[in-house]
Parts: sequence; C-alpha cells; structure tokens
Amino acid sequence: MREAFHEQLSGVRKDLIELSELVQTAVARATVALLEGDARVAEEVISADARVDELRESLENDCYQLISLQAPVATDLRTLIAALKMAGEYERMGDLAVHVAKVARMRVPETAVPEALQPSIERMASLAEVMVGKTAQIIEDSDAEGARELENIDEEMDKLRRKQFRQLFKDEWDHGVEAAVDIALLGRYYERIADHAVSIARRVVFLATGEMRPHDED
Amino acid sequence: MREAFHEQLSGVRKDLIELSELVQTAVARATVALLEGDARVAEEVISADARVDELRESLENDCYQLISLQAPVATDLRTLIAALKMAGEYERMGDLAVHVAKVARMRVPETAVPEALQPSIERMASLAEVMVGKTAQIIEDSDAEGARELENIDEEMDKLRRKQFRQLFKDEWDHGVEAAVDIALLGRYYERIADHAVSIARRVVFLATGEMRPHDED
Repeated sequence: MREAFHEQLSGVRKDLIELSELVQTAVARATVALLEGDARVAEEVISADARVDELRESLENDCYQLISLQAPVATDLRTLIAALKMAGEYERMGDLAVHVAKVARMRVPETAVPEALQPSIERMASLAEVMVGKTAQIIEDSDAEGARELENIDEEMDKLRRKQFRQLFKDEWDHGVEAAVDIALLGRYYERIADHAVSIARRVVFLATGEMRPHDED
Repeated sequence: MREAFHEQLSGVRKDLIELSELVQTAVARATVALLEGDARVAEEVISADARVDELRESLENDCYQLISLQAPVATDLRTLIAALKMAGEYERMGDLAVHVAKVARMRVPETAVPEALQPSIERMASLAEVMVGKTAQIIEDSDAEGARELENIDEEMDKLRRKQFRQLFKDEWDHGVEAAVDIALLGRYYERIADHAVSIARRVVFLATGEMRPHDED
C-alpha cells in the first residue's frame, strides 16, 4: 500500500511537471503573438489554456482521492496539499499568458509594444519563461539551490518593471496613452507569472527543508 | 470525536469570516487613502496586512491538524481543502488592497485619481467592498443564492472597467500617461478582488450543491 501510494504521488509530480511545460509554452507563444502581432498564435494560446485547466482539475481530483483513501499524515499530506496549491498557481500562470495573448490580439495588425520597449518586454518574457522552466526542475529534484536562483531572477524582473515605469513616465514618451497602459499591464502579467514561479519554488523548499520564507509578493 | 471535529470546523469557518472582515476593512481604507491622498491611512492599510497573513497561516495550520488527526473524508475533507484555498484568496485580496494603498502613497500629496475618474473608481471600490462583505454572509449561510448575486455584481465591475478603458483612450484624455497607468492598474486590482470574491462564493456553492461553475476569470 505504501508503495502504491508513492507511485501515485510520483504521478502527481509528473502532472505538475506537465503543467509547467504547458505553461512555459503558453508564455513563450503569447510573447511571439505579442511581439509579432500574430492573431493566429494568440488564438492558439487562448484555446490551449483549456488543457491546463483540465490537467489542473484532474490533478486536484487525484490529490483528493489520495488524501481520502490513504489518509496520509506529516510530509505526505503536506506534499499533496502543496501539489494542490501549485496546480492552482500553474493555472493562474496559464491565465496570465492568455491575458498577454489577448492584449496581442486586441492590437492586431499593429503590435502592442512600441519598438523602444521591445527589448525590455522581450527580456521580461524570457525571464518569465526561464522561471517557469526552472520550477519543473525544482519540483523534479526538490532543489533548494535552484529555488534561491529563482529569487535572484525575480529581482531582475522587479528592476525591469521599475525601469519600464520610468520610461513610460518620461516627458519624451510619445507613443500615447494606449501603448503606455498596454505596457503597464503586460509588465504586471509577466511579473505575476514570475511571482507564482517563486511561490511554487518556495513550497518545494518548504517541503524539502521545513523552511518557509515569509510571503511577499512584489 | 465527531462533535469535537465539527466544533473545530466551525472555528475554521469563524476564522474565514474574520479574514473577510479584515479584508473588507482593508479595501475600504485603501480607497479612502486613494481618494483623499492620505498617506497615514495608506500606511495603516499596509501594516494591517500582517494580521491577514498571520490569520491565514494559523487557519492553514488548523486545517492541516484537522486533516492529519481526524482523517476526514468526503464533504468534511472537501470543506477543509476549500477553506485552505479560500484563506489563500483572502490573503491575495489583502495584498491587492495593499497595492491600492501603495499607489495612493506614491502620489501623496496629490491624489492618483483625476476628478473625472473619481466616480468610477469610487463605484468599483464600493462594489469590491460589498462583494467581500457578501462572501462572509455566503460562508456563514452556505448561501447559493447570494453567490449568484455576487456574479451579477461582478458583471457590473467588468463593465465599469471596460468603460474606464474607453475614458482613458479617448482623444480628450488630458491627465497624462502617469494618471492613465495608475487608473488602469487600480482597475485591475479592484477587478481581481472581485474575481477572488466570486471564486470564494463558487467554492461555497460547490460544497453546498456539488455544482462547480467552470473557471473563468474576466
């Protein structure tokens, strides 16, 4: 019975990793849609999100089943509840990628991001993508070191966002209000994806070491 | 033992209601800080959030204890897991109220909201506050009807937000980029508070009726 339980637990872990892969793809593709003003790619991202929702739901049901039938305690219980929460975070990250895709779609055939801001949005997007990818690795190896690395990348994300605000608010900003609002919201979406990645990493570290960093969001 | 369990479960419910009250106050006070450009009130909201975080953590620990020690199944287990998730949602709503307070603080001694936008921000804030208040009622009475009402209020919130965007993007917008970005982000924060309220209500309805509306965020 214990063996079966640990097999099922590793099924849950596998699903979490699949979720991370789906979300990583969503972030990458949403960014392509955004920077290239590609409505077809945006639609792809939006419809692919249903798979994330499905997988989150099935993972959640598996966790319930395991808790109900096996009545795990201590670490096993904490692992299952953490998995439930992590699945919810991946779902949110998927939603945020959909938001990026919707901004892209709304501005087609133009692109939402003025040329001067493209490098900074590209960098944010690539950080977010890398961070999502690292969560998979951290879950797979219960890697506390990788989690600390993620916090460093998140700091770069926060700096980029502050720099973006300074660019928007400079007197020489001449791309209009609509582009400024798009950038501010896009920045928020990528930053929130990063926050969720950090939060997932902290949950893994907590399970591995018992240490939980205080919750702080940005 | 069953009786003790149900007493503890009602303790969890009480904590959720206290969380809702703390968050409702946070939303109301953050809005005061915002509309009156009051730094002292903004600071109050920011420091009061620690209490929300504490209560969320203690509620979460109680849920773990109950699941570990009592090994509940079926509805009792679902209720405890739902409580864990709802506590996390209240924490997020508290964070979002803090975001509103921080926007307020950043613009002191000015106010972030130009006069023309004050009615619409006031309305959004008041909807958000009412929605948070209704979650308490819904949790207390397992009130599926109240939950449907919440969905209707949320529709008004979404309409307000779309209207706000139209105001920002009109040619006659003359409050500059900074104010437009503030309004867009504030709108996002209030809207997210409303989304979390709806999500909490849906969890209660699910527990009461077994029916879960598909997840849709905005």
